Amino acid sequence: MQGWAFQGTKVSATDVRNGISSIESTYEELLAAPGGIDRIRALETEGVDAAIIGCFGDPGLEAAREMVTIPVIGPGEASMLLAAQLGHRFGVLAVFDSLAATHRTQAFRAGVLDKLCSVRGIEVPVLELAKEPGKTFGRIVEVARMAIERDGAEVLVFGCMSMSFLDVAPRLSREVGVPVINAAQAALKAAESLVSIGLSHSKKAYPIPPKMRGTLAASKAG
Amino acid sequence: MQGWAFQGTKVSATDVRNGISSIESTYEELLAAPGGIDRIRALETEGVDAAIIGCFGDPGLEAAREMVTIPVIGPGEASMLLAAQLGHRFGVLAVFDSLAATHRTQAFRAGVLDKLCSVRGIEVPVLELAKEPGKTFGRIVEVARMAIERDGAEVLVFGCMSMSFLDVAPRLSREVGVPVINAAQAALKAAESLVSIGLSHSKKAYPIPPKMRGTLAASKAG
Amino acid sequence: MQGWAFQGTKVSATDVRNGISSIESTYEELLAAPGGIDRIRALETEGVDAAIIGCFGDPGLEAAREMVTIPVIGPGEASMLLAAQLGHRFGVLAVFDSLAATHRTQAFRAGVLDKLCSVRGIEVPVLELAKEPGKTFGRIVEVARMAIERDGAEVLVFGCMSMSFLDVAPRLSREVGVPVINAAQAALKAAESLVSIGLSHSKKAYPIPPKMRGTLAASKAG
Amino acid sequence: MQGWAFQGTKVSATDVRNGISSIESTYEELLAAPGGIDRIRALETEGVDAAIIGCFGDPGLEAAREMVTIPVIGPGEASMLLAAQLGHRFGVLAVFDSLAATHRTQAFRAGVLDKLCSVRGIEVPVLELAKEPGKTFGRIVEVARMAIERDGAEVLVFGCMSMSFLDVAPRLSREVGVPVINAAQAALKAAESLVSIGLSHSKKAYPIPPKMRGTLAASKAG
Amino acid sequence: MQGWAFQGTKVSATDVRNGISSIESTYEELLAAPGGIDRIRALETEGVDAAIIGCFGDPGLEAAREMVTIPVIGPGEASMLLAAQLGHRFGVLAVFDSLAATHRTQAFRAGVLDKLCSVRGIEVPVLELAKEPGKTFGRIVEVARMAIERDGAEVLVFGCMSMSFLDVAPRLSREVGVPVINAAQAALKAAESLVSIGLSHSKKAYPIPPKMRGTLAASKAG
Amino acid sequence: MQGWAFQGTKVSATDVRNGISSIESTYEELLAAPGGIDRIRALETEGVDAAIIGCFGDPGLEAAREMVTIPVIGPGEASMLLAAQLGHRFGVLAVFDSLAATHRTQAFRAGVLDKLCSVRGIEVPVLELAKEPGKTFGRIVEVARMAIERDGAEVLVFGCMSMSFLDVAPRLSREVGVPVINAAQAALKAAESLVSIGLSHSKKAYPIPPKMRGTLAASKAG
Repeated sequence: MQGWAFQGTKVSATDVRNGISSIESTYEELLAAPGGIDRIRALETEGVDAAIIGCFGDPGLEAAREMVTIPVIGPGEASMLLAAQLGHRFGVLAVFDSLAATHRTQAFRAGVLDKLCSVRGIEVPVLELAKEPGKTFGRIVEVARMAIERDGAEVLVFGCMSMSFLDVAPRLSREVGVPVINAAQAALKAAESLVSIGLSHSKKAYPIPPKMRGTLAASKAG
Repeated sequence: MQGWAFQGTKVSATDVRNGISSIESTYEELLAAPGGIDRIRALETEGVDAAIIGCFGDPGLEAAREMVTIPVIGPGEASMLLAAQLGHRFGVLAVFDSLAATHRTQAFRAGVLDKLCSVRGIEVPVLELAKEPGKTFGRIVEVARMAIERDGAEVLVFGCMSMSFLDVAPRLSREVGVPVINAAQAALKAAESLVSIGLSHSKKAYPIPPKMRGTLAASKAG
Repeated sequence: MQGWAFQGTKVSATDVRNGISSIESTYEELLAAPGGIDRIRALETEGVDAAIIGCFGDPGLEAAREMVTIPVIGPGEASMLLAAQLGHRFGVLAVFDSLAATHRTQAFRAGVLDKLCSVRGIEVPVLELAKEPGKTFGRIVEVARMAIERDGAEVLVFGCMSMSFLDVAPRLSREVGVPVINAAQAALKAAESLVSIGLSHSKKAYPIPPKMRGTLAASKAG
Repeated sequence: MQGWAFQGTKVSATDVRNGISSIESTYEELLAAPGGIDRIRALETEGVDAAIIGCFGDPGLEAAREMVTIPVIGPGEASMLLAAQLGHRFGVLAVFDSLAATHRTQAFRAGVLDKLCSVRGIEVPVLELAKEPGKTFGRIVEVARMAIERDGAEVLVFGCMSMSFLDVAPRLSREVGVPVINAAQAALKAAESLVSIGLSHSKKAYPIPPKMRGTLAASKAG
Repeated sequence: MQGWAFQGTKVSATDVRNGISSIESTYEELLAAPGGIDRIRALETEGVDAAIIGCFGDPGLEAAREMVTIPVIGPGEASMLLAAQLGHRFGVLAVFDSLAATHRTQAFRAGVLDKLCSVRGIEVPVLELAKEPGKTFGRIVEVARMAIERDGAEVLVFGCMSMSFLDVAPRLSREVGVPVINAAQAALKAAESLVSIGLSHSKKAYPIPPKMRGTLAASKAG
Repeated sequence: MQGWAFQGTKVSATDVRNGISSIESTYEELLAAPGGIDRIRALETEGVDAAIIGCFGDPGLEAAREMVTIPVIGPGEASMLLAAQLGHRFGVLAVFDSLAATHRTQAFRAGVLDKLCSVRGIEVPVLELAKEPGKTFGRIVEVARMAIERDGAEVLVFGCMSMSFLDVAPRLSREVGVPVINAAQAALKAAESLVSIGLSHSKKAYPIPPKMRGTLAASKAG
């Protein structure tokens, strides 16, 4: 992601405890979340300016925001809000159709459910996305066309970080004629923007868990 | 809960690994969820007919449904759907105001957001609810009146299992003049109803995580 | 319906004055409603614990709730709320396409319109449903598949009591792979649950008609 | 109403079988509807151009439209659609607060629920509205001010035909500074407009009940 | 339009400064609006009772209402509200598909977005609509059928004044079996109705621009 | 705004033809829009990477996007989407209450209407905002508190560019305890982000007006 950053931004990738090989269900999101939050808490202590969750499903997004004060960016949320700025209706190119409800709930939480007109899975497991890039891209083009022609999508979002790292958004965009959002880029720009402005999430929206109020405050003051 | 069951129903309470003392935030829901799901998977293997999650916030509800085929009941979801049957607008008496967004997302997931007109916290920590029952009840009455008079609630829901176990729903109902739903009872009746009819959740809605399809199916067939 | 009941529940069917042979329109719902409400009022006087309206369209549901204090169950409402618990999107298998708006208004009233993704008629008149059961079932399967494949239904509801009494929900479910709700069973379980918990509809939501407040109260006290 | 009509329009009031003295609940709406529909069917046979239901609650509106082909106007629906044209948010001055859900369902059916921001009852029974006109008007002004100041209403609708016949809409409008809609006038203008254009309700939306298709068509052709 | 008016109504068409040949985009709406508003202000001074904007897109509707006190009718808004009265779901036959978002925003503003189920363009430029009327009508029929059969439209609206002036609504209605609304007629009836009742738009909804409050009031008083 | 930019961004302010002193109504937005669009077209020809409209009301936003291919940013839209990322519910601090409907329509267009919980005017004309900064700030604090306490806002947005240029967002944020968005900063970050990623608005969403398709394309190719 460093190559996509503004001058002056330093991007680091970091592993999480109990990280799992790929996340393709609500269950796997739940497994991945606690370790991710621990890592974000540690990063805040280390002085990092903002944290980006490494999965489009935004596992642990609200919970992480409760536990830290630096901006925590969910790539799914950031991508959907960016998509909302580029057109009236957007579609998510998901890994699997079975993730449709998850992405719909994400859109509800982001507040842009009204603009989400399509969620279609390419039905290629995350770990196989990069195995046969040509075949994967062909499948992506096929599903993208359905999202545009049948569902009316005017903007498309890659519903997966691994799909985003294939770095084929510009190519897909030329192929199908609508803007395509790379979720990793969307998340990075959201993080850089918030840090640049000096804004973070509302603690009224994501409050410290009541029984930790004293200790968390103390640890930050200490 | 046994006392609330239909004849023939056997209710057991069971602890979960890494269970935490009380759940009052999204973060704590996340911590509690994985252990709860493991327990539900084990219960399914043991031949249990249905499982009820032990927290109104329904931690791990969707994920658990992905991993098992028996009905998994979320007390929050069950209570909200029951409330929707008793009136046009219902209110949730939450533990804390800070849980309002969480309960709103639950209502969205249950599909009854349009009927949720009020979420108000009584601002008494879960572990203190039973310490001074008279004081707690007084606070509940006060908040219930605000939900009815200011927000238009026609039905109320106890937004917490521990609040439900105080078993004061009938008393509150007499006091404020609207039906009050005990979340534990709502969940039990939902579980008994599904088992009686022989229905469970749609696997099209809560599919097995793709990479576990073979093994989970095998373990069930085995 | 007795065979579907919990132990201890006694179910009786009862005719209504001016009952009509079948209800397939808003007009016929209106004709059927007053007699049904009279009957429910009489049943309340006789000491019945709860009443179930005998038509999926829930004719007279709100009005009956205004006139009595026992739970009055609408099979349509009960089925839709149950469907909302089993998946993200449900479809109604209606008698006729021409009832789509009626079922949509029911879903609005139940509060779960957001989850209703499909209403499709099988176009077999109510009185002919049982004449050629094989042909009817074939038609039901065909329409169910359209609801699932074209409209995304994850759960199906039989939009008619007579369709429910064919008792083919489990068979259809096996055939098409999603849960299918028998409206009569859904209504029965809702009634049993409310009686078991000791809850009824909110009189704030369904108040006694103002000019009857004195007399109705008196007759109940008398 | 004749005085409010365009030149060339003839307005007649007509009683209905089983008409009741006043309608202040869903139950009373149901009692009044069948007689009203019979009357409208007779009027169509007599050659009337359009029919207006005599109650703001629009009892039997959909059912009547199923049974005839002339325009049937509901004063509630017509008033709400007119209100939607005059501002962003409108309020209904209802007879009783207990009718709020009924008026909300009307707004849903009319399609303008998003613009309904207030339903407040004046709590004066229909049959007493005209007894002390000064006192009634004072109460109306008081409730109107709350609708405007607390709920943000920019337009008001008299939620009752008897309230409309007091003919105080212009006076109230001068008093509170927003347009006030007389439901009887709104209904009359809707009827005159449809007749003038030669339009009536969609039979795709309000189809003849299936089992009457042959006979109703025959009786019209006969 | 004079031929469609009630007895006693005088209709005049009037050109506007900087009027453009046809309006087929948001950009052209913006160009047309200021001249239209100037004209409406002049007409108010001349004593006209109501003004109708000459384009289905309602360019300048809100702004004009801010500047005058006579009723200003938008044909798009008036047509959509009329359509809402004739069925549960309506479709707009637009000039171009590319106007879909514009018409959706109009429906949102009118308050009837929930009933708008279809916007489909006939893809014939406004200035060519009348060139080959037979071919245009054929294209309209084709698109109308798609709106009805694929999108479920029960009522259709001509999304263009020039399409309305072809005066083929009754013919299309006979062809496709649903009511078809001529936007010019809908606007005329709305104007006549408001003038007849003595109502105009809420100045609380469309207030005079703050910095003009003194002068506009003065010029009206003067 | 240069001071708020990322390194490498060059920001220029530019006047528009027929610019008006301040925009406080829909009417004034309409007057300002055409000149603004002309200027943006010229800027595109000059090789500018992105354009920001100089008013929170986003006058001419859709129309400008139809006429150019560079990103056109509306400060209102950008601020609302940013607010949606920082909490569940946001409020707009408007110049006047009379702009509430305008801001609601903006939120609808941005797609985040569900998160907009408050629009409250400070009732200070744009041109007087900077006259008595202390008094203005006091008024802003007062209105901000109402948005938070009465309406539940968790994030606030300055609904005016001139309010944003007072540069008091951080101070207000400290005072009232929620993030406050400076609309100029939000717009700048949106512009920088899009340019950095190489994305612009969907031409499927904002197409070239049909009758200009040839010439606009030619002028860009030429």
